Amino acid sequence: MKNKFINIDETLDDLQLNNIFIIQKKDAFRFGVDAVLLANFVKDKRNAKVIDLCTGTGIIPFILSQKTKVSDITGIEIQEEMVDMASRSVLFNRLEGKIRFINHDLRDIKFVKGLEKVDIVTVNPPYKLKGSGIINSNDKNAIARHEICCTLEDVVKASKVLLTHNGKFYMIHRPDRLVDIMCIMRKYKIEPKFITMIYPNVKKAPNMVLVEGQNNGGKFLRWGEPIYIHSLDGSYTDQIEKIYGRN
Amino acid sequence: MKNKFINIDETLDDLQLNNIFIIQKKDAFRFGVDAVLLANFVKDKRNAKVIDLCTGTGIIPFILSQKTKVSDITGIEIQEEMVDMASRSVLFNRLEGKIRFINHDLRDIKFVKGLEKVDIVTVNPPYKLKGSGIINSNDKNAIARHEICCTLEDVVKASKVLLTHNGKFYMIHRPDRLVDIMCIMRKYKIEPKFITMIYPNVKKAPNMVLVEGQNNGGKFLRWGEPIYIHSLDGSYTDQIEKIYGRN
Repeated sequence: MKNKFINIDETLDDLQLNNIFIIQKKDAFRFGVDAVLLANFVKDKRNAKVIDLCTGTGIIPFILSQKTKVSDITGIEIQEEMVDMASRSVLFNRLEGKIRFINHDLRDIKFVKGLEKVDIVTVNPPYKLKGSGIINSNDKNAIARHEICCTLEDVVKASKVLLTHNGKFYMIHRPDRLVDIMCIMRKYKIEPKFITMIYPNVKKAPNMVLVEGQNNGGKFLRWGEPIYIHSLDGSYTDQIEKIYGRN
Repeated sequence: MKNKFINIDETLDDLQLNNIFIIQKKDAFRFGVDAVLLANFVKDKRNAKVIDLCTGTGIIPFILSQKTKVSDITGIEIQEEMVDMASRSVLFNRLEGKIRFINHDLRDIKFVKGLEKVDIVTVNPPYKLKGSGIINSNDKNAIARHEICCTLEDVVKASKVLLTHNGKFYMIHRPDRLVDIMCIMRKYKIEPKFITMIYPNVKKAPNMVLVEGQNNGGKFLRWGEPIYIHSLDGSYTDQIEKIYGRN
């Protein structure tokens, strides 16, 4: 069964969610807790159309297809190899009617304008500024982690074009980029409306931030209860166990 | 002793800090945990000159005078009655060589430009937008709580004029204003450099935020460990007991 869909350098990973599997490279960028947190942060909107930018191997579309009532999800990804894996995951999971992937550069605004507008944009973009830190020698990983093929502003700009008038924007990012995030979102009139900070545990500084924006939304920002990944004893918190569907 | 300094409608409150007392009105705005948190958030800079905007009865200057090595603190306040109380607190505590208060409107930029530049500006400004929520019938409280006499932008604008080239800006505010805070600070090139979120307890959304900015600072934002006011049993946390100097 597996051999029909996956290549020798790939694995078929069980999402432990309605028997859904996802194809990933053994040695390249693999989805992390950030993608799972983002997918769980999306407020369910029945029959909504969704675009997931920087979709990679499609983890967010696959989780959304199972955990929400959205009707239609398109993932956009610049790396052809990723889109190939994601598309094979669609076939393997028989989700052709609900999920599709497009291999394109979101900076191509003419292409973005040609797409149908959506109610929700999700994105787990590269976190790091181009040129910051050590660039991973593996190109695929560098593109997923550093702003090489798209910057935060490229992501927000494309989202602005894609969203309906009051459409929702959901992003996970690093707290050290929050000034950039807020200023760029406001610049493009996708107002930040709801934020949840993610902490490794109750005693540490936050290392991720979930941001909900609304296209043309009014200025009022609410904050959610913090999410802690680990308890002080190192085990996952109940919050995370619940997100992973284990309790 | 007391009668010489305080009026009948005032109290002389012990800061429980080196035998320092502060004069406050019985029935008007009295300092809260936010002022104490802000004063403790200031990074000690030996011999620094400080201006505290929206100083009220001077709580922040009095705490800074005891907990830090700054040499000289000026509080600026628009309400004459507050400045009168604060100035009597200076005399009572014999801090004439270190603290002074000025009764002026910080929106008067000509006046602000006439002041000597300082290494540190602190501010615990009115949190609420003018016109939001119910305005307290007591004017003094309304001015301290709502942006009636100064907006967030007025505060940042005045700070920009007051700070030396790499001077530090310390503010406590509400998390729901964080987009405004970040965008306005960046607009005036007082870059947010360090943030600490304050939570009522580990399970609740944050209700205060401490922001450190640097005049003409580079773009990099660090985050501190969160501060929780109460434990889940309702008692103060060790973090707060420590700030209040009780352990």
